[in-house]
Amino acid sequence: MNLEKPYIVSVYAVLRNEKGEFLLLRRSENSHSNPGKWDLPGGKLGRGELLKDAVVREVWEETGISIVLGEIAGYATFELPDKKVIAIIYDGGYIIADVKLSYEHVEHAWSSLENILEMDALPEHFKEFFKRFAAENKEPPELPI
Amino acid sequence: MNLEKPYIVSVYAVLRNEKGEFLLLRRSENSHSNPGKWDLPGGKLGRGELLKDAVVREVWEETGISIVLGEIAGYATFELPDKKVIAIIYDGGYIIADVKLSYEHVEHAWSSLENILEMDALPEHFKEFFKRFAAENKEPPELPI
Repeated sequence: MNLEKPYIVSVYAVLRNEKGEFLLLRRSENSHSNPGKWDLPGGKLGRGELLKDAVVREVWEETGISIVLGEIAGYATFELPDKKVIAIIYDGGYIIADVKLSYEHVEHAWSSLENILEMDALPEHFKEFFKRFAAENKEPPELPI
Repeated sequence: MNLEKPYIVSVYAVLRNEKGEFLLLRRSENSHSNPGKWDLPGGKLGRGELLKDAVVREVWEETGISIVLGEIAGYATFELPDKKVIAIIYDGGYIIADVKLSYEHVEHAWSSLENILEMDALPEHFKEFFKRFAAENKEPPELPI
């Protein structure tokens, strides 16, 4: 095989606050890829690392938050200057915690699904993920009174 | 999260013979999903199992062949009756070996890329993978004489 660009697997998580808003992180202007763009917490799978371990580690490194990981929420595929990425996106659950950013990000925001779909500075591959997520995610049935 | 169908991760491999033809397996008519259709060797990721370990195991179970695993060759996404699948497809290298089928498949074939793109009984998601693979896969440069 002689692919023009190698594929890698990355893992990301969607985290929600008590209002159901999603956590987004804004990448540093010095970032190698997508500088200044909004991002989900996550990153590359380490060598010999399980998908679930990698996503818990990445979220912790980038937000200071220890998540209790849920199921797979969806996927995204995208191309960087030097590689192609297959991103597996997990449900990171509902959290109440302060966000402690790493050097990779400069800002965080909690954003509703409607706002996310309108955001200019969110890469198209994450928007596509959120569109599928909105279509696939049934609201829980109303609680009986 | 309350997805209508859960997502799972599966792993598959492309194996080639000395002519550069790809190994395809035909699913049993009793298969739960895609009965009678052509398939790549591969399957579900086990709990706590690394992607690379899972694909080597699945290829061995379904073909009796021990592969030396290469890089990621691409991906496919598809929907089954009860779940959605994110498939990571590895390069399983060039092999010279007899194929010993498991109960899951009834027939095997070695097929050129051109034939694969014409096959009616190959699911569309694998055809899409092979189309991308053909576009991305540069032929090795000619050997100096």
